[in-house]
Amino acid sequence: MASSRSLLVDCHTHIYPPSYMDLMRKRTEIPRVHTAPDGQEKVILLKEEAHGDGSNSQGRPVGPQYWDRAEKIKFMDTHGIDVSIVSLANPWLDFLTPDEAVKAARDLNLDIQQYCSTYPSEASTSSSQFSPQTSNRLFAFGSLPLVPGVETSKVLEAIEQIKSLSHVRGVVMGTRGVGKGLDDEAMEPIWKALADSGLVVFVHPHYGVEGAFGEQDNGHVLALALGFPFETTIAIARLILYGVLDRYPTLRLLLAHSAGALPALSSRLSSCVVHDPTVKDRLQHDFRYYLGQMWYDAVTYGPEELALTERVVSRADKYEGKDEHLAYVDRGVFPGVDRIMFGTDHPFFPPLDGEGTRWKSVDENLDAIAGVAGWSGTERSKVMGRNAVELFGIEL
Amino acid sequence: MASSRSLLVDCHTHIYPPSYMDLMRKRTEIPRVHTAPDGQEKVILLKEEAHGDGSNSQGRPVGPQYWDRAEKIKFMDTHGIDVSIVSLANPWLDFLTPDEAVKAARDLNLDIQQYCSTYPSEASTSSSQFSPQTSNRLFAFGSLPLVPGVETSKVLEAIEQIKSLSHVRGVVMGTRGVGKGLDDEAMEPIWKALADSGLVVFVHPHYGVEGAFGEQDNGHVLALALGFPFETTIAIARLILYGVLDRYPTLRLLLAHSAGALPALSSRLSSCVVHDPTVKDRLQHDFRYYLGQMWYDAVTYGPEELALTERVVSRADKYEGKDEHLAYVDRGVFPGVDRIMFGTDHPFFPPLDGEGTRWKSVDENLDAIAGVAGWSGTERSKVMGRNAVELFGIEL
Repeated sequence: MASSRSLLVDCHTHIYPPSYMDLMRKRTEIPRVHTAPDGQEKVILLKEEAHGDGSNSQGRPVGPQYWDRAEKIKFMDTHGIDVSIVSLANPWLDFLTPDEAVKAARDLNLDIQQYCSTYPSEASTSSSQFSPQTSNRLFAFGSLPLVPGVETSKVLEAIEQIKSLSHVRGVVMGTRGVGKGLDDEAMEPIWKALADSGLVVFVHPHYGVEGAFGEQDNGHVLALALGFPFETTIAIARLILYGVLDRYPTLRLLLAHSAGALPALSSRLSSCVVHDPTVKDRLQHDFRYYLGQMWYDAVTYGPEELALTERVVSRADKYEGKDEHLAYVDRGVFPGVDRIMFGTDHPFFPPLDGEGTRWKSVDENLDAIAGVAGWSGTERSKVMGRNAVELFGIEL
Repeated sequence: MASSRSLLVDCHTHIYPPSYMDLMRKRTEIPRVHTAPDGQEKVILLKEEAHGDGSNSQGRPVGPQYWDRAEKIKFMDTHGIDVSIVSLANPWLDFLTPDEAVKAARDLNLDIQQYCSTYPSEASTSSSQFSPQTSNRLFAFGSLPLVPGVETSKVLEAIEQIKSLSHVRGVVMGTRGVGKGLDDEAMEPIWKALADSGLVVFVHPHYGVEGAFGEQDNGHVLALALGFPFETTIAIARLILYGVLDRYPTLRLLLAHSAGALPALSSRLSSCVVHDPTVKDRLQHDFRYYLGQMWYDAVTYGPEELALTERVVSRADKYEGKDEHLAYVDRGVFPGVDRIMFGTDHPFFPPLDGEGTRWKSVDENLDAIAGVAGWSGTERSKVMGRNAVELFGIEL
């Protein structure tokens, strides 16, 4: 690798540890892992995947890239990724009973700590120039037993466990909380503990939206390209409207897929709030202010979209309080870049035809960072890795 | 008015003609108009409005601003709007039987033609400097009887009727087509007729998304700020994936609320398409190309969001065909401004406290146009009115 390149940290990269694969293989309903007639194991996560035709039928191929650490490192080396912060992929523990989820979270957190902290298990094969401590190429988000009916104390115990694990620096979380979403009184002690912990909370979608995609067969496109970002957008809008960021301003939320459609609809949300008698006096600030309190991955696939994320974060402090403010004017200052971090969504979106060794989906996101108009080299290097080093406290 | 200001044309402004109000008053189910205990007539359009408390209960106040032309002109004069292109507000004719819808469309198209063409009915009170022909301050989108079970020939007859009406320059359309959405074989002859007609098709949401907004009372905020744009985004993504813009490249679609989340998710859509075996070979161009084939209102409420709409249209021609292209680099050239047009969404989003005479929601959208970084005065004047003059063939 060229020594002049930027440190590259992947904040959005998933695994299914072997124990999790076993949980999914045992299931007969979605989500599940099954062996297709051709002998290929496939994971069915979405209802849309339970039918279909030809190569697209019955889910997506699932193989060692989901659980084999050597495959993750190989992917990282191919793309020049120095450090990955891995997280359990959706649907996490959502399908388990409370007791099962509590046990599974505890075991998976130990698994993922071992996955990260014992690398390399043999003589170093690391090709990173930035990691003299080669044990520091892998970090993780832990899992919480967030299922309906779980005792709050069990969730708080999981947070305590995670705080004790050297390589687990955050938690991954879906949008349902303990069943009613992230705008639920039952989540309050959990938000408080997470805010106090300093852990990064990676909010990620799984369920999409219901009954909106019609009768034509569009494969996974609409569920993944629209359902996922819509789910995240709704969940975070609800969280903000419930006052969670007013009460816990130190909460560190990292939003998957650059928060979906939240940046593009944040001024519309602001306007709808001030025009609605039910909501207009509820929040301490203009809705747009809260976008500056959160972090975003750079998984947008295009530079114009990524630029929007940066601009809505950059303008956020103009909207402190509820006074009228002049529109933000772009003067070539980009404070929002401090809140955005490269991600790949590995091992999802592999090349369809296996062409080359680099993944198109990864290059799209690298090109997006390279293509944002106006950013300096320093700003791009923050997004590529320096921001993650700071946020997760990564020791290089 | 200052003579140096730009011509201002409002392409997104709604009416409920008296005959439509009567249809809504007769109904006992949503959508309906009823008289609240305080004597105020209210319209209930969304399920979220059928409950609620206090001033927010049982819908939104509906009054002469919905049907009285003098009120529309007064609103236009207050905000310096020279020309309005009015459209029937949602939910249009969706709740009628085919026979009822055919008759209602025919009558409403005559009503709206009269509404526009007979102004001023008495001595001119126009304050516009741009309309020596004062009969040309109002134009319209007509209505089509797009309901399940309607005969295609009846829809085509409505298109013929509209073509014969001097002040009706387009049609307003929801996202359900004749029941199954805009990606429906039954829509093909209708798309063909609309493409051949040169009429502008204003696509507007009404239904939002189902079951996603949780248990907290957030008034109308989530349904309007998120459900509406999500519905439009899904509808147009489905239309593109069905190949409608490949088959009818001359179709002139104008997308409400700047196409919702479509600009922000267009690169994600592109990436999901090329990674999906079901869809990857279906379209003639990269998904992003099609964004350059459509028109957008400027109803974004913020300059950064509006800039994104312009940028994704500006970059569209880079994505002709399916070759790899370098990321679009912003060089201060803004061809996308030709496709964006000012709108107000009047008479929705009135000031809550009646303060002042100008509407905050209108000023937010004017400020958005004024605040986009990089646009010249010429570019802003296109968005404010010149584009609409050209697209709708308005004679000044």
